[in-house]
Amino acid sequence: MKLLRLGPPGAERPAVLDAAPDGRDRYLGLDGITDDIDGAFLASDGPRRVREALPAGSLPELAAPADGWRIGAPVARPGKVICIGLNYRDHAEETGATIPQRPVVFMKDPATVVGPFDDVLIPRGSRKTDWEVELAVVIGRRARYLDSRQDALACVAGYAISNDVSEREFQLEFSSQWDLGKSCETFNPLGPWLVTADEIGDPQALGLRLSVDGVPRQDGHTKNMIFDVAEIVRYLSQYLVLEPGDVINTGTPAGVALGLPDRPYLRPGQTVTLEIERLGHQRQTFRQA
Amino acid sequence: MKLLRLGPPGAERPAVLDAAPDGRDRYLGLDGITDDIDGAFLASDGPRRVREALPAGSLPELAAPADGWRIGAPVARPGKVICIGLNYRDHAEETGATIPQRPVVFMKDPATVVGPFDDVLIPRGSRKTDWEVELAVVIGRRARYLDSRQDALACVAGYAISNDVSEREFQLEFSSQWDLGKSCETFNPLGPWLVTADEIGDPQALGLRLSVDGVPRQDGHTKNMIFDVAEIVRYLSQYLVLEPGDVINTGTPAGVALGLPDRPYLRPGQTVTLEIERLGHQRQTFRQA
Repeated sequence: MKLLRLGPPGAERPAVLDAAPDGRDRYLGLDGITDDIDGAFLASDGPRRVREALPAGSLPELAAPADGWRIGAPVARPGKVICIGLNYRDHAEETGATIPQRPVVFMKDPATVVGPFDDVLIPRGSRKTDWEVELAVVIGRRARYLDSRQDALACVAGYAISNDVSEREFQLEFSSQWDLGKSCETFNPLGPWLVTADEIGDPQALGLRLSVDGVPRQDGHTKNMIFDVAEIVRYLSQYLVLEPGDVINTGTPAGVALGLPDRPYLRPGQTVTLEIERLGHQRQTFRQA
Repeated sequence: MKLLRLGPPGAERPAVLDAAPDGRDRYLGLDGITDDIDGAFLASDGPRRVREALPAGSLPELAAPADGWRIGAPVARPGKVICIGLNYRDHAEETGATIPQRPVVFMKDPATVVGPFDDVLIPRGSRKTDWEVELAVVIGRRARYLDSRQDALACVAGYAISNDVSEREFQLEFSSQWDLGKSCETFNPLGPWLVTADEIGDPQALGLRLSVDGVPRQDGHTKNMIFDVAEIVRYLSQYLVLEPGDVINTGTPAGVALGLPDRPYLRPGQTVTLEIERLGHQRQTFRQA
């Protein structure tokens, strides 16, 4: 099931993408089920209620993105956005880092989350704004001191595409801590959909791709994660509490500007396209802040 | 003016601490002014509305903490908690770090914020849970690409005491990034009050103290910050957007367990007391998670 949020920033309306009887895509509003797709909705078994409402045919059809509706991020106001650094062997190598023995955990400002087709702002003074296609995990149940990988996967509501946009000078040259270069305004496009875990099956069986102005830059596969989704969630739950609606960016494969010989960092006017198997695609134009 | 939140976790009621005509402290509910002390309240000039309501005598008196009411954190649901690392020369030296040339910026999970007298949980498997008394800055106005120190201070709603509890093994030994050891459950007692900026005046003129089971451990002064409050807010606004209700922990002076010869990390049953001039005091008992 594909859950999404349609409408202007701050006034998105929750919806589900469904196939009409004639096979075309249609967008149904979640009126009467929830006001938003957020932690409270996920924690209260909201996706099950949507699934049960679909056959009844009671959900109202909404105007589609093709008619000019904006797609927002598929989750409202994450309590936190956790990132796992250097989680693909080839990316760790391209940046000159050693392969980590434990997940490298850092955070982004949750307010950086924007829609999958929104413009992304290149910060004033930035010379090294970079892309990172990532599989995002959205938490559906509170995760605290989990015992097993199975328990960990049971806490996952679903998955989405994330662009973990990064300013490399702010991230790597200003101090030892990366969060500043990860937390600039608009630096986390998310979506288009939250695809529920049951529809994805094995999260380690997904190809990820990213291109800049049509030039292929990243072409990876989640099977190459050093720490897989189950291990990431289990591991994090030993140290902090994951709450419904929290987002985890699980790391990026090789092919970022930082790792390329000519370091082709993003310039205003460039367009980045991301796709992950079964999770749809994103496209952002980069603008000067 | 001292703003606070009284009541059980998740059901706190906003209040102001005021002097009654006979001079005793009394707690007045903010009924009719706001449902909570949060970003929306601060952004909408809420503190001014409270100040104007006080002389009218229309605010209802509430039962006091002395009568068993819990004091919660003075701000609900911060969008983010930013920390400035190694921001006192003596603390940087005690940890063996070099004096930073730029603010060291990292983040805590905002869900770690608890009340100033709540128990703090020592994580399972922790051997190095440590304390840090800090001046917390609460943002009152959106801060983005600020031009001056004066503009920066105008974005500050007020100040509070923060205990930036830290697990040093998780923070320093598991990876290069500190957030994991800063984000454990209950790791950010905040309060008791949000003291509005007008009542504090110069934030660089405040003594800070912390003791463990009555043994004095930290005794610092905000005049010894490497980057002061105005510079921290101005600096951060060049790279990310500070929103009303966001919290900044501005660093800790010397005297943490990590910096003491015998490394006396916290054990279950120990009690930590913190105070900052004009901001009141906190006291937490540490328990095993």
